[in-house]
Amino acid sequence: MDSDRSELKRRAALAALDHVFSGTALGLGTGTTSDCFTRGLAEAIAGGRLRDIRCVGSSRATEELARSLGIRCLSPDELPRLDLAVDGADEVDSGLRLIKGGGGALLREKIVAQASSRYIVIADESKLVPRLGRGRLPVEIAVFATRPLLLRFEDMELDPRPRMHDGEWLVTDEGNRIVDVSVPAKRDITDLVEELHLTAGVVETGFFPSEATDVIIATSEGIEHKTRTR
Amino acid sequence: MDSDRSELKRRAALAALDHVFSGTALGLGTGTTSDCFTRGLAEAIAGGRLRDIRCVGSSRATEELARSLGIRCLSPDELPRLDLAVDGADEVDSGLRLIKGGGGALLREKIVAQASSRYIVIADESKLVPRLGRGRLPVEIAVFATRPLLLRFEDMELDPRPRMHDGEWLVTDEGNRIVDVSVPAKRDITDLVEELHLTAGVVETGFFPSEATDVIIATSEGIEHKTRTR
Repeated sequence: MDSDRSELKRRAALAALDHVFSGTALGLGTGTTSDCFTRGLAEAIAGGRLRDIRCVGSSRATEELARSLGIRCLSPDELPRLDLAVDGADEVDSGLRLIKGGGGALLREKIVAQASSRYIVIADESKLVPRLGRGRLPVEIAVFATRPLLLRFEDMELDPRPRMHDGEWLVTDEGNRIVDVSVPAKRDITDLVEELHLTAGVVETGFFPSEATDVIIATSEGIEHKTRTR
Repeated sequence: MDSDRSELKRRAALAALDHVFSGTALGLGTGTTSDCFTRGLAEAIAGGRLRDIRCVGSSRATEELARSLGIRCLSPDELPRLDLAVDGADEVDSGLRLIKGGGGALLREKIVAQASSRYIVIADESKLVPRLGRGRLPVEIAVFATRPLLLRFEDMELDPRPRMHDGEWLVTDEGNRIVDVSVPAKRDITDLVEELHLTAGVVETGFFPSEATDVIIATSEGIEHKTRTR
């Protein structure tokens, strides 16, 4: 089962590689599915199919992996506009809306997504959901606001859970913290996220309403490619 | 003129002190007008009028000042809910809406404001404006997003200006940067700020639409106290 899942991730990643051309300014996602893409990219560069690829990684971990595979990585200061970014997601709905951030890189991932003309999400079929919020919504918060926000999220009945690592708060690449909240069944996620954004100390959420231009889903029957109609 | 201005700030600060009682959990603002309030508070504590005052400072600078004057300061983790916060503002309109952040402490200031049941803004009459946006709107941003956001703000015709200190980017208490943008005459500030909040890498803005419950303005004719009607 797990090896089937890995194989589906790899197939989705390889399908996305067909949309990369020599000269592309490319954003690299974070997580196991994205790592499949990064490895495939490195092979395509090493094999000579792709030349002059410059990348921005959406986390320090991704940047380290890509560099170790010989991929040229730059900062967003050096490469502020991207042609394409490819990333995974925790949940995808039929409207190409996403929940991301299980890996803790949501802020850089969203910055990379919004800096890119095209944003392809790759996933295995287990990530497709009829309604976003099956799992939790990650919310990146400023350290100073921790307790006030935990109390606020409790008042909002979001059942907030601190994202921990080895018994301590996980620290994001930007020096913030993550609280995973539930999306109450009675609440519209767009409305909830708007309220969160107006709350001081909320830096970013893992809800990506309109970033994805394409979703490539690998199923046991084959590849499904959905494109956003604008 | 400048000494008149200082005297007005001091009068607004002293008027706010009348709303502090023994036992109050109090948020302290940042800036010259707030500093007048903090000094007045320290005198009231030293003189014995106020007892058992616990404070949260809205910046490291304010916390240092308050502690040096013998005021007890705690973190928001220790004191997550406040009875009252008192702070200055750069601009105040007739609807008690504010622009803040000239001092660079907007994020902590807004966290403190939202953690407080009552939020009194103190100012001299020069801060009253018919329309917010006379000066610039500070936007706190994640370092990683710097160049993508500067380009985005230029596309949005906001004439972005990096907030510098000694030739380097100013670093906020949360490790972020500040870009000061103009509010285009044709744009509604609420609408502009909503768009900014949905932009990845924007951590907070200096627009405080509904936080102030009271505004105390010192004019050459006396004190004007406005309260928000709910």
